[in-house]
Amino acid sequence: MEHQFTVEGMTCGHCEKAVTQALRGVDPQAEVRIDRQAQQVQVRSSAAREALAAAIREEGYRVA
Amino acid sequence: MEHQFTVEGMTCGHCEKAVTQALRGVDPQAEVRIDRQAQQVQVRSSAAREALAAAIREEGYRVA
Ligand SMILES: [Cu+2]
Ligand SMILES: [Cu+2]
Repeated sequence: MEHQFTVEGMTCGHCEKAVTQALRGVDPQAEVRIDRQAQQVQVRSSAAREALAAAIREEGYRVA
Repeated sequence: MEHQFTVEGMTCGHCEKAVTQALRGVDPQAEVRIDRQAQQVQVRSSAAREALAAAIREEGYRVA
């Protein structure tokens, strides 16, 4: 399933990597695309939306 | 010796860690203090100033 999140606080490539790895922690197969300027994170994953959002939040970013 | 660098491009804690680790790559004993808002990196190290600056640059940050 395709999930789209608005994520605030990603300021650099390290942040993109941190968010990607957090999502892969929930689902190692997750496909992640990030548009940092637009604050958009797109995730193709079979995991529950709330589990993905929680992983982003636990990494220290705000999911709008 | 105490070295002070003005470093541009550090936007988050990951950047601070990356710069710190780059400096420790040159001198594992280096003591590093970073004031990100002020763009200041202070390094206590016996390594040559240019080696420290080069490590910061190679990590992708601008040393002014
Ligand atoms: Cu960052
Ligand atoms: Cu950063």
